[in-house]
Amino acid sequence: MQSADLYSFVTRVRDTAPLVHCLTNLVVTNFTANVLLAVGAAPAMVVAREEVAEFAPVANALSVNLGTLDLPQSRAIRAAVDAANGAGKPWVLDPVAVGPLAFRTQFALELLDAKPAVIRGNASEIISLSGGTSSARGVDSTAATDAALDAAQILALNTQAVVAVTGETDYITDGRRVIALSNGSPLMTRVTGVGCALSATVAAFVGVAGSRDEHWTATVAAIAYSTVAGELAARDSALPGSFAVAYLDRLASLDAQAFEATLVQRDVALS
Amino acid sequence: MQSADLYSFVTRVRDTAPLVHCLTNLVVTNFTANVLLAVGAAPAMVVAREEVAEFAPVANALSVNLGTLDLPQSRAIRAAVDAANGAGKPWVLDPVAVGPLAFRTQFALELLDAKPAVIRGNASEIISLSGGTSSARGVDSTAATDAALDAAQILALNTQAVVAVTGETDYITDGRRVIALSNGSPLMTRVTGVGCALSATVAAFVGVAGSRDEHWTATVAAIAYSTVAGELAARDSALPGSFAVAYLDRLASLDAQAFEATLVQRDVALS
Amino acid sequence: MQSADLYSFVTRVRDTAPLVHCLTNLVVTNFTANVLLAVGAAPAMVVAREEVAEFAPVANALSVNLGTLDLPQSRAIRAAVDAANGAGKPWVLDPVAVGPLAFRTQFALELLDAKPAVIRGNASEIISLSGGTSSARGVDSTAATDAALDAAQILALNTQAVVAVTGETDYITDGRRVIALSNGSPLMTRVTGVGCALSATVAAFVGVAGSRDEHWTATVAAIAYSTVAGELAARDSALPGSFAVAYLDRLASLDAQAFEATLVQRDVALS
Repeated sequence: MQSADLYSFVTRVRDTAPLVHCLTNLVVTNFTANVLLAVGAAPAMVVAREEVAEFAPVANALSVNLGTLDLPQSRAIRAAVDAANGAGKPWVLDPVAVGPLAFRTQFALELLDAKPAVIRGNASEIISLSGGTSSARGVDSTAATDAALDAAQILALNTQAVVAVTGETDYITDGRRVIALSNGSPLMTRVTGVGCALSATVAAFVGVAGSRDEHWTATVAAIAYSTVAGELAARDSALPGSFAVAYLDRLASLDAQAFEATLVQRDVALS
Repeated sequence: MQSADLYSFVTRVRDTAPLVHCLTNLVVTNFTANVLLAVGAAPAMVVAREEVAEFAPVANALSVNLGTLDLPQSRAIRAAVDAANGAGKPWVLDPVAVGPLAFRTQFALELLDAKPAVIRGNASEIISLSGGTSSARGVDSTAATDAALDAAQILALNTQAVVAVTGETDYITDGRRVIALSNGSPLMTRVTGVGCALSATVAAFVGVAGSRDEHWTATVAAIAYSTVAGELAARDSALPGSFAVAYLDRLASLDAQAFEATLVQRDVALS
Repeated sequence: MQSADLYSFVTRVRDTAPLVHCLTNLVVTNFTANVLLAVGAAPAMVVAREEVAEFAPVANALSVNLGTLDLPQSRAIRAAVDAANGAGKPWVLDPVAVGPLAFRTQFALELLDAKPAVIRGNASEIISLSGGTSSARGVDSTAATDAALDAAQILALNTQAVVAVTGETDYITDGRRVIALSNGSPLMTRVTGVGCALSATVAAFVGVAGSRDEHWTATVAAIAYSTVAGELAARDSALPGSFAVAYLDRLASLDAQAFEATLVQRDVALS
């Protein structure tokens, strides 16, 4: 893909400050809001069942993260998703730790029927959601990569969502096309919430997409932008405390030239 | 006002470490606690309905923020406010996003009867609380400023609270007097929780006030100190990740000389 | 104790990345997760009553913190503790603000019957848990130190837990032995969550212990490592915002040589 096409989403987010409604986990609320502000979006953490249905239609997109799901939150998420769908607003599902834990796994499977625009998870989560049973912890071998890509394709075709499998390499597919991104840094896994906030960033980018046709490109753009920012931040600092600060700074300032010079992408043939 | 009179509240907070009981939103708990610690106060986030009534009388002030209000929290807030009032402790209301959302708007209006010492919000929130219906997003035009000031005055007179309308310029009124503060930085809106934590800082400052007569000055002092710290922090760093760090550092170290040299204030005539 | 024996726990944590299940307070979730990641552990904040019993046996240790306890969380904690015990996994109790608040004090006392491996608190909390009634705010006088040490010994003997009383000097006892650690920095009290995250770090270290016999050494190692890191971080930065960043960086990078060169410890005779 053209780097300029991807970066155009960054410009759109900065210019229009999309309102991103987040129902996320207790650990990452603050960092997620700061990441959204850094990329130029407007975070809104309206969480009560009494309010989500009123708020979701006002937002440009909804980001749902199951990291600390409990019963009250599951009801609020359900109401928010239904309201977003009713208003034609896209929503993103981050199925944290789905697979080993029954309560959230069952809920995530139910949510698939509510047509997320994008699903972003690691290999193990995506395999679980697609109906597979894998203990894959990453995409670190050819077999594991193939299993994750198969699962992502199945999930994308079954749900009509864009599916992103993130890890050392990130794969984004709409079931017909796959792109692989190879930016980032291991430090991104040493700061809590980087992955969760990435899902909210995807929501921001999908929230400025002109139509459903752009969701795949918007998702690639969000992940490419974030991982390039992470890679450059890791050049600023090799330790996690200062890396987290540098990551926010890079997200707020990464320009088109540095983005293009750093981006590593390739097309992947689907089986 | 004399800069030294304002700064005397900073000294009092540092010397006495007032205990500030916070019932705030899920996004900003950590940052609010760190801001309170930086200015020299002692944060206490006792949130359960089972405990708030026991704790509020022990604290020097209570800070209430409606950012992620839900039904259980509304009950805990009500119990905390009643206990603070019963013990003669001042409390501060931050009516986040009041206006467009019915549940929190209704609750905020009910809370006005419980006599907050201070109400701090943006123009749109203050206008909503005063009974107006405005979509003002800031104080960026003469008409918008006049509308916000009118609303603040009405709200102050109706509730006997000090009312602070914060934005590019901050206005603080007790219904008879208004002061305008022109410090700060746009970066303060790029870090989540700066405004919410400011309300908690106001609570800390009001918590060391000798009497109700000092609440207006204490509120001006809290906002002046915080926005001067923010303006100086923005000189340290132009990007949001490192700005947030610099802001905490400045809050912990800003001295009387730098405060006085940076402070920009003026009296405003009420209509 | 030999510095190398203590540091061997650091190496074990880094090599095996123990999964630490945290049920902690709303203020410190993010910082706690980042501290655990910095020391090399894997944080997992599974909080719902529906999931904790399924998750606790999978983790290497459980960390329980009562800072923002409410009724639903007390039920989740109870279920998690029972599941951890059933699976033979150690758990750590951080009895935040126990003593003045009845709800959490009653709950903490009930939890003592569930055999925590370690209890970490300040002097006032440990005295309250041991059945004493003291308003000690620290260990800043000989009498206060004696009262806290007596309480810690009683509590350790009654519960068979390792008990750590942290403050300017940290005391760790199993009821028969006491070690005193004199590292750290006052800045550690100016950043919210440093103490709470320390309890989670203790859980990580206890989680890699070979047997119950090692719990005392593991606890000493966790507190020694964290306070040495804090002391060195305070040399990097004298202000709380940048100190918090430096603390995470030091936790992620402190080597055996710097640890040994900085550690200050002594044995204490029990009465």
